Amino acid sequence: MSIRFLSVSSANFTLHPQLAADTIPIGDLPLCRVLLMNNRHFPWLILVPMREGLRELFDLSDADYPAVMEEVRDTAKKFAGLTNAHKMNIAALGNIVPQLHIHIIARHTHDAAWPNPVWNTSVKPEFYASNALSHMLKKVKECLALR
Amino acid sequence: MSIRFLSVSSANFTLHPQLAADTIPIGDLPLCRVLLMNNRHFPWLILVPMREGLRELFDLSDADYPAVMEEVRDTAKKFAGLTNAHKMNIAALGNIVPQLHIHIIARHTHDAAWPNPVWNTSVKPEFYASNALSHMLKKVKECLALR
Repeated sequence: MSIRFLSVSSANFTLHPQLAADTIPIGDLPLCRVLLMNNRHFPWLILVPMREGLRELFDLSDADYPAVMEEVRDTAKKFAGLTNAHKMNIAALGNIVPQLHIHIIARHTHDAAWPNPVWNTSVKPEFYASNALSHMLKKVKECLALR
Repeated sequence: MSIRFLSVSSANFTLHPQLAADTIPIGDLPLCRVLLMNNRHFPWLILVPMREGLRELFDLSDADYPAVMEEVRDTAKKFAGLTNAHKMNIAALGNIVPQLHIHIIARHTHDAAWPNPVWNTSVKPEFYASNALSHMLKKVKECLALR
């Protein structure tokens, strides 16, 4: 009951249409919606704090900031384990999509862009195959214990 | 005295040689060394937690993680104000330099890579001119009240 009380109502929260177009929603943490980037080249989650009107990490309230960052930490650690990542890339950029969102990307030395960051590369995004997508969504949902 | 006790001794801390080569040290926060990337195209700080052997954000201890993230938040907010940034880009990547470091980059709509991230671009890094460098170092040191 206390967990329920602490969690954010998503009733007034609207995901930016560009994020909605590029990703698949997996579920919600207490503060952040968890999305999977639909790009089979990189295991790539995006966390979106379910508050309206945020652009910068420092726009989060004094109470929300450490709680969101703890969700980032926990998600990154578990996703690194799930994907057997060599390195995690964690970033809040938002130059194009203004709604605050945090990238959590599992990198491998054999991936298509290594060792470069995943942005501005010549690697064209490719959707997951249907079975691979279902499998990934299920694994992440279990791993992060998402609602 | 309590501040001194809480802050990290840098005696056993060694900056990775690649970070040392690309940046100029500005000063220390209680947990992080603050570096300026010597690239006049982007006002660009790097925070390096002064602990040995860290690669991932989640390698920070339960006590250090929120404290480092608070230093990131405070630095980003103040640096955004100092540089009149349109957007801050905050990232922990580390694919090439394994020592944990956090990029805090002030972006402007007129900068050389906008709206792309600063990595993997065709924009060649250029050093600051001597006067501009001294001015930037002084302003950041004052703005962040660095030791």
